[in-house]
Amino acid sequence: MRKKNAKYVVGVDLGGTKILSAVIDSRYRILSRAKKNTRPERGVDVVVDRVAASIEEALDELNLTYANIKAIGIGAPGMCDPKTGTVLFAPNLAWRNEPLGRMLSKYFGTPVYVENDVNVGTLGVYHLELLKSKPVPRSVVGIFVGTGIGSGIIINGELFRGHNFTAGEIGHMALSAEDGLKCGCGNRGCLEAFAGRLGLVKRIIAEMKNEKGDTPLHRMLAEEKDHKIKSKHVAEALHKRDPIVTRLVNEVAEYLGMAIVNVMHLLNPDAVVLGGGVMQSFGDYIMPRVRKAIKRRGIPVCCDGIQLVGTQLGDDAGILGAAVLAWTSLAAKTKRS
Amino acid sequence: MRKKNAKYVVGVDLGGTKILSAVIDSRYRILSRAKKNTRPERGVDVVVDRVAASIEEALDELNLTYANIKAIGIGAPGMCDPKTGTVLFAPNLAWRNEPLGRMLSKYFGTPVYVENDVNVGTLGVYHLELLKSKPVPRSVVGIFVGTGIGSGIIINGELFRGHNFTAGEIGHMALSAEDGLKCGCGNRGCLEAFAGRLGLVKRIIAEMKNEKGDTPLHRMLAEEKDHKIKSKHVAEALHKRDPIVTRLVNEVAEYLGMAIVNVMHLLNPDAVVLGGGVMQSFGDYIMPRVRKAIKRRGIPVCCDGIQLVGTQLGDDAGILGAAVLAWTSLAAKTKRS
Repeated sequence: MRKKNAKYVVGVDLGGTKILSAVIDSRYRILSRAKKNTRPERGVDVVVDRVAASIEEALDELNLTYANIKAIGIGAPGMCDPKTGTVLFAPNLAWRNEPLGRMLSKYFGTPVYVENDVNVGTLGVYHLELLKSKPVPRSVVGIFVGTGIGSGIIINGELFRGHNFTAGEIGHMALSAEDGLKCGCGNRGCLEAFAGRLGLVKRIIAEMKNEKGDTPLHRMLAEEKDHKIKSKHVAEALHKRDPIVTRLVNEVAEYLGMAIVNVMHLLNPDAVVLGGGVMQSFGDYIMPRVRKAIKRRGIPVCCDGIQLVGTQLGDDAGILGAAVLAWTSLAAKTKRS
Repeated sequence: MRKKNAKYVVGVDLGGTKILSAVIDSRYRILSRAKKNTRPERGVDVVVDRVAASIEEALDELNLTYANIKAIGIGAPGMCDPKTGTVLFAPNLAWRNEPLGRMLSKYFGTPVYVENDVNVGTLGVYHLELLKSKPVPRSVVGIFVGTGIGSGIIINGELFRGHNFTAGEIGHMALSAEDGLKCGCGNRGCLEAFAGRLGLVKRIIAEMKNEKGDTPLHRMLAEEKDHKIKSKHVAEALHKRDPIVTRLVNEVAEYLGMAIVNVMHLLNPDAVVLGGGVMQSFGDYIMPRVRKAIKRRGIPVCCDGIQLVGTQLGDDAGILGAAVLAWTSLAAKTKRS
């Protein structure tokens, strides 16, 4: 079916807690948005229905129908086979081998492209930000620091997915041989255990118990109903020079720097981009410290000239990246046929 | 100049201490060899003359002249720009920006291809060993464990060189945040400091001083004139279950496993190949322990199905890889023109 009036794509950011959908045009303007909770505990079919409903909501806002969209791009939180659109493994959704792409494609009668969420974010940053820099980087590692830490790898201008579609698992790079912190993966000393938001908050809580006192963070949390540490608290505590938070966020920067140096030594990419919730919340504090750690630890002949930048796409990296996935996949398909 | 009778290439393995040259045919049979000391302390021109002399010696042995060789491939110990044939930086030779390819090409009147030695080794292993396996791996990391540790990266069947032509510096992957061993690069905790031969021997010496005793290695060294620990001593001490050597070589395997898991998580290649002097001397002991460490540390969905093998090319990896460089570069040139 040729769609003559189809001028848009839908970008979907499918996360463990929420689903964001947006109608996006070929100049990457976001024309409408919809948001739903994911509810993975209710099973695969419910989640797929909710994805479909969020897409319909975003279309409806613009008075559009299925016929107006050329393709759907989806970033999913796990291992994906982009050829079949299958989510092979997504621990946060408790999914194994779910044919997400096929299900939605059948429902909407439109091509659906499925890719790992961090790869999608990296694709978005690459196409919407880095292609504008000169010289254009051809190999890029996009590192997203949020609850956990993941990365996407671009080689020769294309996503590099690896043997099991899991290339970029930088969060589980071991950085401490023996005594490292316990990580969710079962190992010790992974980058994520030190520098992911979950790891950071755990460490802050442990330190606060040790130093029962009157730090800015103690006072802030006393005022909150649930006493939970959120990114805004960490950012504010940093601003108020809370000693525990300052020390531990400095360590986040140090470990991130160490991991990035390992990437620069091993892959020697043209650029490294940092994004994700932690960078959005206190990237201004972290970034100069990461640069310092890289300067101190990196071998100059290996690291010289590699761009290190933060993405400006923010929360929209997911939906915009999914739109890039959709538009570039369509273009590749046209080129092939 | 078309060379009608040119049926051979010369592969050169230019190291910090010795130069190996070999005449090799298109079926990768080594027809003659020559060996010279490098003598880097005598300056660039002397080294280049010695490379030329070793090539001439290998040719002369077969009664061949310059007219009989189609190209020369050279693996050099440092950063190389393969487009220009320039050695950009080679600490072991004390070279910076030396146009090795141009000098030799002028002298021999034949194309000369220059590439980093570890890249050349990886290229050799890829073309002569891995292309025979099924399915053929498309992305490979070749790790060479010798005095130091380096690696070469193949992506989509091609060498990936990186921004500064230094991709693959796995020897300087930091594996220990704070208390790691001092490395030659100035950092602490690099893989090479734990698992390279130089690092291993340093650690053995330090431990022997602590435990002044009557271990098998103590006895072996007492019989040697120079009391220097060589690979053969380590291998024999392992065989005799020397407690110090056994413990430290077990640690070599553990750190190698840790670094390989980091590579499998980050790059997720189809295959990882281990080679180099240390693997040749006691790879039979190390390999099963590396596999165990990978099994214990690796995330199964990321590491499953990635081949881990040892190369059988041994000492010839350098000259054979250089021949692969020459033949494949010639083929690429023919294809372009």
